[in-house]
Amino acid sequence: MSAPDQPGAPVRFGLIGTGRIGQVHAGSIARLPDAVLTHVCDPLVDGARKVAAAHEGARVSADAAEVFADERVDAVIVASPTATHVDLLAAALEAGKPVLCEKPIDLDLSRVDALRERAAEAPVPVALGFNRRFDPHFAEARGRVAAGEIGRLEHLQITSRDPAPAPAEYLRSSGGIFRDMTIHDFDTARFFVPDIVSVQASGGNVFSEEIAGIGDWDSVAVIMRGRGGEFITITNSRHSAYGYDQRLEVFGSEGLIEVPNVGDTTVRLHTAAAVESRRPYQNFIFERYAEAYLLELAEFIRLVRGEESRSPGFEDGRAALVLALAAEESARTGRTVDVDL
Amino acid sequence: MSAPDQPGAPVRFGLIGTGRIGQVHAGSIARLPDAVLTHVCDPLVDGARKVAAAHEGARVSADAAEVFADERVDAVIVASPTATHVDLLAAALEAGKPVLCEKPIDLDLSRVDALRERAAEAPVPVALGFNRRFDPHFAEARGRVAAGEIGRLEHLQITSRDPAPAPAEYLRSSGGIFRDMTIHDFDTARFFVPDIVSVQASGGNVFSEEIAGIGDWDSVAVIMRGRGGEFITITNSRHSAYGYDQRLEVFGSEGLIEVPNVGDTTVRLHTAAAVESRRPYQNFIFERYAEAYLLELAEFIRLVRGEESRSPGFEDGRAALVLALAAEESARTGRTVDVDL
Amino acid sequence: MSAPDQPGAPVRFGLIGTGRIGQVHAGSIARLPDAVLTHVCDPLVDGARKVAAAHEGARVSADAAEVFADERVDAVIVASPTATHVDLLAAALEAGKPVLCEKPIDLDLSRVDALRERAAEAPVPVALGFNRRFDPHFAEARGRVAAGEIGRLEHLQITSRDPAPAPAEYLRSSGGIFRDMTIHDFDTARFFVPDIVSVQASGGNVFSEEIAGIGDWDSVAVIMRGRGGEFITITNSRHSAYGYDQRLEVFGSEGLIEVPNVGDTTVRLHTAAAVESRRPYQNFIFERYAEAYLLELAEFIRLVRGEESRSPGFEDGRAALVLALAAEESARTGRTVDVDL
Amino acid sequence: MSAPDQPGAPVRFGLIGTGRIGQVHAGSIARLPDAVLTHVCDPLVDGARKVAAAHEGARVSADAAEVFADERVDAVIVASPTATHVDLLAAALEAGKPVLCEKPIDLDLSRVDALRERAAEAPVPVALGFNRRFDPHFAEARGRVAAGEIGRLEHLQITSRDPAPAPAEYLRSSGGIFRDMTIHDFDTARFFVPDIVSVQASGGNVFSEEIAGIGDWDSVAVIMRGRGGEFITITNSRHSAYGYDQRLEVFGSEGLIEVPNVGDTTVRLHTAAAVESRRPYQNFIFERYAEAYLLELAEFIRLVRGEESRSPGFEDGRAALVLALAAEESARTGRTVDVDL
Repeated sequence: MSAPDQPGAPVRFGLIGTGRIGQVHAGSIARLPDAVLTHVCDPLVDGARKVAAAHEGARVSADAAEVFADERVDAVIVASPTATHVDLLAAALEAGKPVLCEKPIDLDLSRVDALRERAAEAPVPVALGFNRRFDPHFAEARGRVAAGEIGRLEHLQITSRDPAPAPAEYLRSSGGIFRDMTIHDFDTARFFVPDIVSVQASGGNVFSEEIAGIGDWDSVAVIMRGRGGEFITITNSRHSAYGYDQRLEVFGSEGLIEVPNVGDTTVRLHTAAAVESRRPYQNFIFERYAEAYLLELAEFIRLVRGEESRSPGFEDGRAALVLALAAEESARTGRTVDVDL
Repeated sequence: MSAPDQPGAPVRFGLIGTGRIGQVHAGSIARLPDAVLTHVCDPLVDGARKVAAAHEGARVSADAAEVFADERVDAVIVASPTATHVDLLAAALEAGKPVLCEKPIDLDLSRVDALRERAAEAPVPVALGFNRRFDPHFAEARGRVAAGEIGRLEHLQITSRDPAPAPAEYLRSSGGIFRDMTIHDFDTARFFVPDIVSVQASGGNVFSEEIAGIGDWDSVAVIMRGRGGEFITITNSRHSAYGYDQRLEVFGSEGLIEVPNVGDTTVRLHTAAAVESRRPYQNFIFERYAEAYLLELAEFIRLVRGEESRSPGFEDGRAALVLALAAEESARTGRTVDVDL
Repeated sequence: MSAPDQPGAPVRFGLIGTGRIGQVHAGSIARLPDAVLTHVCDPLVDGARKVAAAHEGARVSADAAEVFADERVDAVIVASPTATHVDLLAAALEAGKPVLCEKPIDLDLSRVDALRERAAEAPVPVALGFNRRFDPHFAEARGRVAAGEIGRLEHLQITSRDPAPAPAEYLRSSGGIFRDMTIHDFDTARFFVPDIVSVQASGGNVFSEEIAGIGDWDSVAVIMRGRGGEFITITNSRHSAYGYDQRLEVFGSEGLIEVPNVGDTTVRLHTAAAVESRRPYQNFIFERYAEAYLLELAEFIRLVRGEESRSPGFEDGRAALVLALAAEESARTGRTVDVDL
Repeated sequence: MSAPDQPGAPVRFGLIGTGRIGQVHAGSIARLPDAVLTHVCDPLVDGARKVAAAHEGARVSADAAEVFADERVDAVIVASPTATHVDLLAAALEAGKPVLCEKPIDLDLSRVDALRERAAEAPVPVALGFNRRFDPHFAEARGRVAAGEIGRLEHLQITSRDPAPAPAEYLRSSGGIFRDMTIHDFDTARFFVPDIVSVQASGGNVFSEEIAGIGDWDSVAVIMRGRGGEFITITNSRHSAYGYDQRLEVFGSEGLIEVPNVGDTTVRLHTAAAVESRRPYQNFIFERYAEAYLLELAEFIRLVRGEESRSPGFEDGRAALVLALAAEESARTGRTVDVDL
């Protein structure tokens, strides 16, 4: 971890995993002047090579152990499949390298808990890839709530609907909608109300027999309560005919802060039939949250450098999983599930 | 019931109760060319006299029995306190007079059920005062859903927040937030998804210790499911810093129909600080739903005349109460409550 | 003029002209508790009879002289064809009856000027039917400008587009687009900037050869300047594919006040193609300005009663005509035309 | 011009002028994978050095002649003061290097015309820096008009208001508001209606005595007509209390396409006073048109490579100047000025 010792030197990154999300991180590194990609790792070494090609001097390997052993790597990004996260996090802690790990830490809480103490005591920071905290729209809302513009927070409403479900093959091993999709919303909930104490949820299949067939739900609704009595409501659907729907409403004692959807342009067409905005919402994660991914990495660099940082950490990753499991239990049993984060 | 026999003759109304809502109905009668107010009744006979003064030839009485006995009354509007509704409905049925009764029928389901069979078998119609079904904004949404514009309905979201709580004295006997306030939203839910099968709810006090003190909640969140799996979510607050908040979102397989709030004018001010609409939302029930009250009465006149009518009836009043009681039970026990309407 | 002497007694109206606009005024009288229609006059006496039928005790005549001679008439509304306005105004002044006259006073300035002195010296008030001043949206904008919310007014932009042109037969005798259609916008301009000193205009035919054939333009653009240097821009079209377009923007030293169009409901549909509001704008004058007509009459009643009133008067009618004629001259010659109102 | 001969090789740029706009172009080159900055020139050689520092291997010079002589330069960007444009364009044509020149070509039409024939006959392309054509919002509007979504274009309305005037020192030599500020809007007008035949304009000072003192106007309004009769209206102000105001409305036979302002986020605050969007508009040129600058350069690269390109050229630069001069004449004389582009 030499970079932070030389003030101003760019942070040298090792990237593990070069799928879609790994590529996004590589792109962010290219755009940030104080980041450089020096090592790219993927068992599918061709993917690693492709990503490395755009980064002068980047080393390529197929084995993550080489990343952790590489002295030219100041910090690691874990963008490999979920099942590998816990082991790679453990390796990063052992190697003393700061790590940004994609969510979720794991689908299994016991595996997460097995790492919990080590993460808490490690001298290097662990950041979790909850990128929505860095979305400029959500972050502005959060900042204005913190500034007291709506007084005391009373109710947070999260609407989150994907354009279309992932392929059945993916869904079969995703851990179910709560751990796969709602997990982002659980973290967004905690971005506003960190200490949540109870969860009620309902799951259903309103459009997809295929998803029902693999034992998952295509839609869910959740009511949670904060320790201060705050209400949090979440609704999810794995499809949305009108595009990626990502909205917040934060109700407070003095007002409401609303984050509507984000469009590509402001153009509106008025005809005899209607007033309309075409292609209303940005298509999906990588378009809607493009800037969030960049800002997430910038924030992680501050964390690596020991500066003040808003990066969510290991406990945030664990808390989102606890809420997902509680929601699943509530949806199965019909009972409110109490949690203690 | 002579009016319907003379096609074109205005329906002659007897009005029982001349509080705020009774006055609204009297005003609607004055504006509708095919309605006339011929009898006004209130034990506080001064109130009855005041209302009658603006209606040429209207008789005044202090005893509802006189209204039911009055041959010049074709139909009755019951706008008296909730506790009197069941008896007045029974009297109307016995007198053979069509009746429009304010909601709720009663706070006690057993008293409602005691009247259920008689209402079903009566030769004259009973309409319930769920005026929101007639709001032009909600009604347009309902019509467009029925026309298939969003495909199959998957999720209905209702946001309903009052500007400020009623006085504690009123709240003490209101039957609680579910039977007093959410009851409107339960009917709106059934306007879109008539057959609801389960209810989950959470109640809390996020702003008012006074309301907590009388054993009621100031805010609630509800998840319901329709027989076809449809999701319905409702959130209520007894206060809203930014004005009366009455919104719908109807998500379907092909799109989303949204009913935002309604403002007085379209004027917007742009300054260095902000783009803003002043006095954003219409203040409260009688302003926001002014047109709905008028259209509700027009629809009841069609019902009285034996024409096709969209007026909600006795069973709708009962169903809303069943849902309110189920929500209360769920909020108290933390369990999902199944219902069979 | 006995009514004003008896405080509280309704003003008794004589209505001359029972075409579309005359019927609107009759409807407003019916809705205002302090107005009553006692005399209806039209050479097409059947029209007068029809209107009178809904007003108990209203007398019918075919000759306007009978209205002016009627002692039961406190004030007169002139809603007859433009060519009759000057004579009827003169008769009203002679009879000592306050009069509300539809715009324009006349197409010919010399005829207006011939009446000017008499109107100024008359003991009874003359009001002109520039109803837009009473539109709640425009009036709120005007009030907020007057309250200083945007500082000093720098530029007023008026967009005014009719859904479709009137029949060619009407257009042939309308006096041309400036005196027939833009005249409303000239008055709206003076509502915000009373003292206008110069006019530049351009007229063209961008969609209708028929209108070109009768020597009129189907579209115009106007730049005017106020005595304080203020800019006023007006654009008109005799058609609008997307509905009646009636908008204002008022730019000031401290901000912008905008009056967008007015829709019937707030409902929005979101689909894969677009976010849209159906039936976006209220169809035409009688729908868009329904409330303005009512408020215009209420304001005239205040004028009749000698109370403070915002009703525009004879000089406002004359000024709008002067601006229309100046615009026409500018459009024909290509030169800026100076005016002194 | 070797780059186009080697397909895929990045275009090597020489940049002349390293003020604010030159720095923006250098930044765009850094972000475009198929562009590289190889020569940076500014008589203030420190500025050139600073810009070059971020571009590996970029040569620095103080004399533009060295750029034109540099074999490693495939294309030149002229971002120096207006007075130098004509000579630098001439030098680029002589050196056979494609050139992107900032607007305006010159303040003096005769100097532009002296170069006109040479520019037309040159084997290398000249592009003009009218970046608004590449703004995604404006470009979408243009594309949808071209696709026939509003039928035949009837009227284009351009609203363009700067947040605050440039310093008086700059304004003194800017050539006046029409050649300095409206020139962008003249090009935007021609983006939609290329062949404009007449110009009416009015100039005034509604807020700044300082600007009046140097003989310039602080606000203008313009009416132009296209050869097909189309109306074009432009309003400008050198200040805008509520932020940078850049809007279009395009009215056609079948509808209206509107381009409202662009905000930073979608966040809205609702309080008892208002519904508001804070920091509503992007601050000024370099923020509002950030993406346009990037796309402008990408389009110029296509032009350099001989591919199909939408880059505006020399004649577009000349036409905008002709319109600016016509507007100035009209504003001074009060007469409509005919033009033949």
